[in-house]
Amino acid sequence: MQFQLSDRAGTLKASEIRELLKITEQPDIISFAGGLPAPEFFPAKELAQLTQEILATDGKVALQYSPTEGYALLREIIATKSMAKAQVNTVKDEILITAGSQQGLDFCAKLFLNDGDYLICEDPSYLGAINVFNACHAKYLTIPMDDNGMIVDELEKLLQSGKRAKFIYTIPDFQNPTGVTMSVERRKKLVELANQYQIPVIEDNPYGDVVFDGERLPSIKSFDKNGWVIYLGSFSKTLCPGLRIGWVCALPELLQKFILLKQISDLQCNTLTQREVAHYMRDYDLDKHVNQVITVYRNRRDLMINTMKEYFPTNIKYTYPNGGLFTWVTLPDHINAAELLEEALKDKVAFVPGAPFFPNGGHKNYLRLNYSNMSEDKIVEGIKRLANVLIRFIS
Amino acid sequence: MQFQLSDRAGTLKASEIRELLKITEQPDIISFAGGLPAPEFFPAKELAQLTQEILATDGKVALQYSPTEGYALLREIIATKSMAKAQVNTVKDEILITAGSQQGLDFCAKLFLNDGDYLICEDPSYLGAINVFNACHAKYLTIPMDDNGMIVDELEKLLQSGKRAKFIYTIPDFQNPTGVTMSVERRKKLVELANQYQIPVIEDNPYGDVVFDGERLPSIKSFDKNGWVIYLGSFSKTLCPGLRIGWVCALPELLQKFILLKQISDLQCNTLTQREVAHYMRDYDLDKHVNQVITVYRNRRDLMINTMKEYFPTNIKYTYPNGGLFTWVTLPDHINAAELLEEALKDKVAFVPGAPFFPNGGHKNYLRLNYSNMSEDKIVEGIKRLANVLIRFIS
Repeated sequence: MQFQLSDRAGTLKASEIRELLKITEQPDIISFAGGLPAPEFFPAKELAQLTQEILATDGKVALQYSPTEGYALLREIIATKSMAKAQVNTVKDEILITAGSQQGLDFCAKLFLNDGDYLICEDPSYLGAINVFNACHAKYLTIPMDDNGMIVDELEKLLQSGKRAKFIYTIPDFQNPTGVTMSVERRKKLVELANQYQIPVIEDNPYGDVVFDGERLPSIKSFDKNGWVIYLGSFSKTLCPGLRIGWVCALPELLQKFILLKQISDLQCNTLTQREVAHYMRDYDLDKHVNQVITVYRNRRDLMINTMKEYFPTNIKYTYPNGGLFTWVTLPDHINAAELLEEALKDKVAFVPGAPFFPNGGHKNYLRLNYSNMSEDKIVEGIKRLANVLIRFIS
Repeated sequence: MQFQLSDRAGTLKASEIRELLKITEQPDIISFAGGLPAPEFFPAKELAQLTQEILATDGKVALQYSPTEGYALLREIIATKSMAKAQVNTVKDEILITAGSQQGLDFCAKLFLNDGDYLICEDPSYLGAINVFNACHAKYLTIPMDDNGMIVDELEKLLQSGKRAKFIYTIPDFQNPTGVTMSVERRKKLVELANQYQIPVIEDNPYGDVVFDGERLPSIKSFDKNGWVIYLGSFSKTLCPGLRIGWVCALPELLQKFILLKQISDLQCNTLTQREVAHYMRDYDLDKHVNQVITVYRNRRDLMINTMKEYFPTNIKYTYPNGGLFTWVTLPDHINAAELLEEALKDKVAFVPGAPFFPNGGHKNYLRLNYSNMSEDKIVEGIKRLANVLIRFIS
């Protein structure tokens, strides 16, 4: 039997990384391949208590259909608390609740991209976004990165040269996959360019609150006076990912389109879950919770980086993330990280090869390491194993 | 500021009905306009208890990311219990968990429709589906209905004439908006035609279990030997809609594409919620629960129909639904239901004009009435009011 699929469906293919992750789920493998938050601090007890209260007092409403744009109190709290932390001055009516920021990305793709349209993004960029954009048959203009994130001067050159794209997609804070953060100066410049060239910026910011040293930087949207920046937020890395609650913050006239997309996509987010998250934000101190997470992640980052320093060959480079979940490793040019992975799996250690994160391909000599989801002793042991594989493989 | 949106986004527009429903939320209006289940029987207490247990014993897993295809136990239970009630013999690997059946519809549209493709559907059909298909710039070949659902002989004539479409979309049980059910004979014939003309059938079946008199009919998919039927299910009308849990049942090779769409759309459904629903299905008797719902809805249908019989002018026709949430009223040809609504609102009673349910337009003289969400005394009072408006308006 042969189904006549749409052109867009024809290009859907399984993510190499997800296929790979299946192998790495074997219990004897030390895996730095995933992107999972540490579950130790998920507020299970608090959420159980809140659910009890909500269902006891308000069950008929909490289990019923509810407005597409989201639970008013949650939208309010996101506007006044979450967006305030990103230094954005906004209101409830600029917030749509989404099923994680992944759904926000899907909506951005639907909203802006015709088949074959160009978009601008960092090189490398988030694989989950690339997969969404690929499904719309997007083409990519990529901007290189350095330790201060997207090199915005290169973006300016591109725009000056007359190249045009539907939007600029960026993960400014502790980027997935590189762990790198865009400097404040570049954020300002990016907003200037967005205004000058009238091009929307999609700021995907799930990690911003998970900052290890110093304060969170002002978001790109905080410099946006005219509404060119669409901000995608998420509770996945601060509270927990399983509840699938994120948001879009955009000008009301644009948000209206997002709401219509939400309506045809799945009508609304889970009514009960929205209440759980809103009441958690109202009744508990999310900052205190996030600080616990940060302490653990910071320690794990330190352990990973210090062990790499001690055991990795000196011609291997890696980023020093000040937040988020990942560090990004640059191998010598001639090393293929996918082949390295085959060797590493023999030694029962796993990572994600970096090539799929480059939307236009190439770049075989990179890999991504996750430090948030592995115990301290396994981090040390796993990095030692990986160092041994590297030494064998490179020599 | 002018955003350069995609062609598909350009055609998104607010649903007339949803705008209308905002007016009807005023507390003094008796509204038959919505499509809400009755909240009296939502199992709030049971869900609170289950959530407590899940989070106490398994919180780290229940709040973490989880597989895109869904929680294994829930897929298993849907295959063995829910699909068995639809008389479909299937297994876990043919089930994907979705955010309500609305998300299944969205995925069907993405999977099959290029801009300008034709699909075949009943006339009228579900507005939420029409909105999804419109966003893909679909065109419609419509099949008329009678008291036994889609007139499948008309479908055969259409296919014989050489007309082609990407799929046939149907709501066979207690259709929204008409409340009409497709006969078994037509279900069989529909599957034969699907095989003969190699055209997929999307069976949207959220109401099948809510049957008032006699047994549920075998689903269309129950006659499907070759995998042409894609079944969309939902817990919204049996358990509660706020949890947003539905499913797709399709051949594994096709389901794989649905899973990839799920992955780029929102990664997965809420991990905790999937456990709540699975454990409810495991630990409680959903049938018993649904029987309570049925008793109430049957009574409300009877009250509504009997009151209409008594008070409506005799030239007004309406369907006699044997399940589901709606009856469908046919006014004399020259009556415009949208104009009637304006009058009705003055008398503080509301309904949905039927025109938006006809994908190719026209048909101003229909309206939909919901009986599931209004108390018995309000049903009688509301229908009396509507009868008065009708008598005034028609004379």
